[in-house]
Amino acid sequence: MDFSAVLNNIHKQIQPLLGQGKVADYIPALAEVDKKQFGMAITLNTGECYGIGDYQHPFSVQSISKVFSFTLALRAYRQALYTRVGREPSGDPFNSLVQLEYEQGIPRNPFINAGAIVVCDSLISHFRDHKYNAQKETLHFIRECSNDDTINFDNNVFTSEMQHGYLNIALANLMKSFGNLNNDVDEVITTYFQQCSVVMNCQQLSRAMLYLAYHGRDPITGREFISGSQAKRINSLMLTCGHYDASGDFAFSVGIPGKSGVGGGIVAVIPGKMAIAVYSPALNKNGNSLAGTKALELFTTMTGLSIF
Amino acid sequence: MDFSAVLNNIHKQIQPLLGQGKVADYIPALAEVDKKQFGMAITLNTGECYGIGDYQHPFSVQSISKVFSFTLALRAYRQALYTRVGREPSGDPFNSLVQLEYEQGIPRNPFINAGAIVVCDSLISHFRDHKYNAQKETLHFIRECSNDDTINFDNNVFTSEMQHGYLNIALANLMKSFGNLNNDVDEVITTYFQQCSVVMNCQQLSRAMLYLAYHGRDPITGREFISGSQAKRINSLMLTCGHYDASGDFAFSVGIPGKSGVGGGIVAVIPGKMAIAVYSPALNKNGNSLAGTKALELFTTMTGLSIF
Amino acid sequence: MDFSAVLNNIHKQIQPLLGQGKVADYIPALAEVDKKQFGMAITLNTGECYGIGDYQHPFSVQSISKVFSFTLALRAYRQALYTRVGREPSGDPFNSLVQLEYEQGIPRNPFINAGAIVVCDSLISHFRDHKYNAQKETLHFIRECSNDDTINFDNNVFTSEMQHGYLNIALANLMKSFGNLNNDVDEVITTYFQQCSVVMNCQQLSRAMLYLAYHGRDPITGREFISGSQAKRINSLMLTCGHYDASGDFAFSVGIPGKSGVGGGIVAVIPGKMAIAVYSPALNKNGNSLAGTKALELFTTMTGLSIF
Amino acid sequence: MDFSAVLNNIHKQIQPLLGQGKVADYIPALAEVDKKQFGMAITLNTGECYGIGDYQHPFSVQSISKVFSFTLALRAYRQALYTRVGREPSGDPFNSLVQLEYEQGIPRNPFINAGAIVVCDSLISHFRDHKYNAQKETLHFIRECSNDDTINFDNNVFTSEMQHGYLNIALANLMKSFGNLNNDVDEVITTYFQQCSVVMNCQQLSRAMLYLAYHGRDPITGREFISGSQAKRINSLMLTCGHYDASGDFAFSVGIPGKSGVGGGIVAVIPGKMAIAVYSPALNKNGNSLAGTKALELFTTMTGLSIF
Repeated sequence: MDFSAVLNNIHKQIQPLLGQGKVADYIPALAEVDKKQFGMAITLNTGECYGIGDYQHPFSVQSISKVFSFTLALRAYRQALYTRVGREPSGDPFNSLVQLEYEQGIPRNPFINAGAIVVCDSLISHFRDHKYNAQKETLHFIRECSNDDTINFDNNVFTSEMQHGYLNIALANLMKSFGNLNNDVDEVITTYFQQCSVVMNCQQLSRAMLYLAYHGRDPITGREFISGSQAKRINSLMLTCGHYDASGDFAFSVGIPGKSGVGGGIVAVIPGKMAIAVYSPALNKNGNSLAGTKALELFTTMTGLSIF
Repeated sequence: MDFSAVLNNIHKQIQPLLGQGKVADYIPALAEVDKKQFGMAITLNTGECYGIGDYQHPFSVQSISKVFSFTLALRAYRQALYTRVGREPSGDPFNSLVQLEYEQGIPRNPFINAGAIVVCDSLISHFRDHKYNAQKETLHFIRECSNDDTINFDNNVFTSEMQHGYLNIALANLMKSFGNLNNDVDEVITTYFQQCSVVMNCQQLSRAMLYLAYHGRDPITGREFISGSQAKRINSLMLTCGHYDASGDFAFSVGIPGKSGVGGGIVAVIPGKMAIAVYSPALNKNGNSLAGTKALELFTTMTGLSIF
Repeated sequence: MDFSAVLNNIHKQIQPLLGQGKVADYIPALAEVDKKQFGMAITLNTGECYGIGDYQHPFSVQSISKVFSFTLALRAYRQALYTRVGREPSGDPFNSLVQLEYEQGIPRNPFINAGAIVVCDSLISHFRDHKYNAQKETLHFIRECSNDDTINFDNNVFTSEMQHGYLNIALANLMKSFGNLNNDVDEVITTYFQQCSVVMNCQQLSRAMLYLAYHGRDPITGREFISGSQAKRINSLMLTCGHYDASGDFAFSVGIPGKSGVGGGIVAVIPGKMAIAVYSPALNKNGNSLAGTKALELFTTMTGLSIF
Repeated sequence: MDFSAVLNNIHKQIQPLLGQGKVADYIPALAEVDKKQFGMAITLNTGECYGIGDYQHPFSVQSISKVFSFTLALRAYRQALYTRVGREPSGDPFNSLVQLEYEQGIPRNPFINAGAIVVCDSLISHFRDHKYNAQKETLHFIRECSNDDTINFDNNVFTSEMQHGYLNIALANLMKSFGNLNNDVDEVITTYFQQCSVVMNCQQLSRAMLYLAYHGRDPITGREFISGSQAKRINSLMLTCGHYDASGDFAFSVGIPGKSGVGGGIVAVIPGKMAIAVYSPALNKNGNSLAGTKALELFTTMTGLSIF
C-alpha cells in the first residue's frame, strides 16, 4: 500500500479542521502551543517510517504515557495488579471522583487518571530498592520502546502541572483514604506528573508502540517487553478505555486500539501490521485531538485496516 | 484448523464449570432450565457448521436479539438513530436508571435495556404503515439472517416477562417522560419483550451472525443486509458494550466482538473468519454465561483468533 | 396581634411578585390557571379565620395531600411504616430516581413523590377489607380535618395526571421491582393521582391543618386524629422535607414547618398557635409557590412567630 | 422545672446504652477514650448550670466547632457567604465527594466537612490583615461565647488529624479545582483541623451556645455576637443539617436544633429557654453520639420542650 499517498490525502482532507477545537489551557505550558499544528507518522515492523506535516515536532505526550507505565506495572505485578485497578470502561469523564467514591477507591481502568495514579504508586513500590526510581525507570522504558535515548521530561510542564493539579491531588488523596495507595501522596503525584511531562514526536511515538502491534516484542530489535497475551490485553484496554468518555465513539468510528493525550497526541495500533501516531493540539469536546481523531478515522477508512 | 478437535477440547475443559453460577430466576420460564447444559457452534462462510454438546438445544436468546433489532434500526435510520441512543459503554449495570436520568433519557448504547427499548420504539414507528409490525419484521429478519423459517417467539417466556418486567417498564416510562419514546409505552414494552422471547439454538445463532463477520453480507446466500461500514460499527459496539458492565473484561479476556443474553447464550464474531454461538444457562455475577464466557476465552486462546 | 393588618400588609408587599415565576404546565388542567392569583388564610384554635385575596378560591392541593395520607398511614402502621419509607431530607429533586435506585427502592421520606406513592400503597393494603377504599378514606379524612364535607376530587386534573404521569409511573415500577409496593402498580398510581387532585381553598386548608398545630387534636371539635408525639414528628418532617430540594431554604427563611404543592398552595403550622395556608400558582425554580413562600417569610418576620 | 431530677432520670435510663456503639477510630487520639463516659449539662439564661456524670470532662469538640466558625463567617460576609456554600441538607454522608462534584464545588451547607472548609477559607481571607489569624480568632470567639479563657486547641489531636486527613484534603483540593477556595490548600486544611481540635466540656459548651438560644446575644454578659435574624437562621441550619445524613432523624426524634461532633459531643438549643450539651464518645452508625442522641430525645420527651 502506498502509505505516503494515504498520508498526503489525509493531510489535505483535514486542513479545514485545523484551528477548530480548543487547546488544553489548564496550564500555561500547554495553552501556548500553535493550535494549527498537525503531524502523523506510521512505523512498520521493518522500521520504515512514513510521516507527514509536523510529525517530527515534539509535544507533551501526557496521558499517552499511561500505556508505558501500565506495561511496566503489568510486567511487574501481572494479574495481581487488577485487585487495585479494574479493566472496564468508565462511563464518566476521565477525572470523575463519583465513580471512585462509589467503587471504594478502585479506579475502573488504568487509563483514567485515577487508574494511572494507582499504577504509579505500584511502580514506586516495585522500584523502591532498585538503582533507579519509578519515574526514571518509566523514562528508561519509553526510551527502550522507541529505541531513542534523547527522549526526556519537560520540567516546565511538570512544574506547571504540580501547581495546578488540584483535581489529581484530590483523586490521589481519595484513594489514599480508601487504602489504595501505598506510598506518600506527594511522591505518587510527583511521579505521575513527571511521567505525563515526557516530550516525544509522532515518529518516536509510532516507533515506541510497535511492541503492542507485534505480540509484546519489538519487531526491529527483537526485544520482548511483555508476553503476547499481555500485549493483546493492553490493546483490548486501549480500545475500550483509551479515550475517556469517548472510547466507544473512537472504537466505533476508527476501529483500532488507541490512546489519546490532552497534549494533542494519539497513538494507535493495528495488530500485526503497524503503529501510528498523530498530533494536533486542538481538542474536541471530549478532550481528544479533533483533527487527530478524524485523521485516524480517514486512515482506517482509506486503508480498510480496522480490526472489525 | 481442526475445529472439531478444538471444540472437543473446550468441552472437556469446561466440564468442571458446569453447574457453577446461577440460572436467571426473575421469571419462572427461565429459572426451570437445566443449569448443566452446554453447547457451542461455529459457522464458516462456506456454510460448514461445527457443533458440540447441546448446540442444537433451543433456548431463549433474550438480549442477543438486540443485535438484530439494532441492525434493522440502523438500516432504517442510519446516523439519525444516534440522536436517540449513544454508542458509549455504560459503566453501570445494564438496567440502571441513574445514567438514564443523568443523561436526560438518552441511553448510552443500544445494547443496554434502555437502548434496546428505544430501538424497538424506532422500529414501531418505521414499520407503522408496513404490512407487518415491528415485532413481526424483527422475527422475519432473524429468520432471514439464519436462513431458517422455523424460528419463533416463546409465548410462555413473553407472558412471564410482561408480568415481572417492572424495571424495564420503569425505564420505558422514564424515557417517555424525557420525550425519547414516540409510541405508547405498552406497545413498546410488548414489542421489546416479544423480541427477547425468540428461541434459537447455537447452530442457528452462529449461522445468523455470519453477516457481521462478512461486511454485512450473508456469505452463503449473498444477500446484503447492511453496508460493510455499518457491520464494522456493530462489531465495534458489541466489543465495547456487548456484555453490560463486564464488556471490558470480555474484550480483555476473549478479545472478539460478542453479545450475551440472560438466557445463557453468547454470540461472537471473528471478522472475515466465522461466527460463533455458545450456550450454558448458569450465569456469572455480571449476568453473562459463566461456562460460555470461559469457552470463548479458551477458543481464542487455542486458535489465536483474537482481533488484537 | 392584629392578623388582619398583617395580612393586608403582606398582600401589599407581594404585589410586585405576582406574575413572576411559572405556573406548572405539565398538565393542561394546571397550566390554565391565572398566574396572578394570591390568597392567604390563618385559622386559630378558636376557629377564627383571617383571610386575604383569593383565600376562598379553590385550587388543586397536589402534594399538600401527602400530609393527610401520611397522617393516615402513620396512624395505621406507626413505627413499622419506617421500614418502607425514611425520614431524611432527599438532597435531590422531588422525583429523582437516582436516590431511589441507590437506596434499593426505599424513598428517603414520605413527602417526595416516591415516598407518597409508598404511603398510598400502604393505605390500599390497610383499607383493603374496609367498606371504603384508600382514596375514599383519604378524602373522608381530609373532610374530617377541615370539618367540611363539600371537599372533593377534581376528575379533570386526575385524568390529566394519569395521561402524563410517566415519571411517577417509572418511580412506582422501580419500587415494585425492589419489592416495596404490595399492590398492583396501576391501582397505586390511580390512588396517588386521585389524592393529588383534591381541590381546596386556603380557608379550608388552614382549618384542616389545625390538628398539627395542636398535638394531633382538632382544637375546635376536640377530635384526636393522632397522638401528640406523632403530630410533633409530622411537623418535624414538614420542616426538614416539606419543600423538596428547597426544604433547607424554606426552614432557613421562613422558619416554620410547611408543605407545598405544585398547584401553588403551601400550608404551614405554628405549633400551639395557628395554621396557615397560602396560594399563588406561579412557582419559583424549586417548584414552590413564589409569592406564597415570600408571604410566609414576611409573616414570620412581621410576627416574630418562627419556631427558632 | 426540676432539671436536676430530669438529668438524674436520663442518666439512669441511658446506662444500658453506655458501651454500645463505636468510638471514632480514624485517629489514635480519639480511639483511646473510655467509651462508657457520659455527661450532660444545661445552661439557662440566668447562668444557672445543671450537670450530670462527666459533664466537666473535657473532650474534642470536632464538628461542633463548625457552629462557631460559621457564626464568625456569617457575621463577616452576611448573605454573600451563600454564593460559596448552600443551606440545604445533603442527603449524603458528611464527607461525600459525589455531591460536591455534581454541584461544581459548592458544598450544600456549612455543617458538612466541605462546607466548613469553605468557611475556614473565608475566615482566612477575612482575617488576613488582622492582628490574629483565622484559627486564633476562632479560638478567641469560642472563649468569648463560653466566657472562659482557658479553652484551647489539642495539639496531639491536630497532628493526628493532619496525618490521616486524606479525605478532607481530597475535598479541599476538589473545591480548589472548582475555584471555591481562595487560599492555599495547606493553610485552609491546617486552619480546619486546628478548629476541630478544640477541647471543651459539656458545661463550657452549653454556656457557649446560649447566644443561639437568645437571638444572637449572650443573655448573661449582654454581648451581641450576631443579629436575632442570623441566630434564627443558624438554628434552622442546625435542625436541618446538624447531624449529617441523620439530620432528619434527629429533628424527628429530638425536635430541637443541634450539632454533633465525632468526638462524641452534641450541642442543642431550645430557643428562648436554654442551651444543652451532652457527651458520650461511642457513636451510632451515622457517626453521632449514641447515648447522647438518646439522652436528648429523653430530655425533650420528659420536658415537652420540642420546637414542634
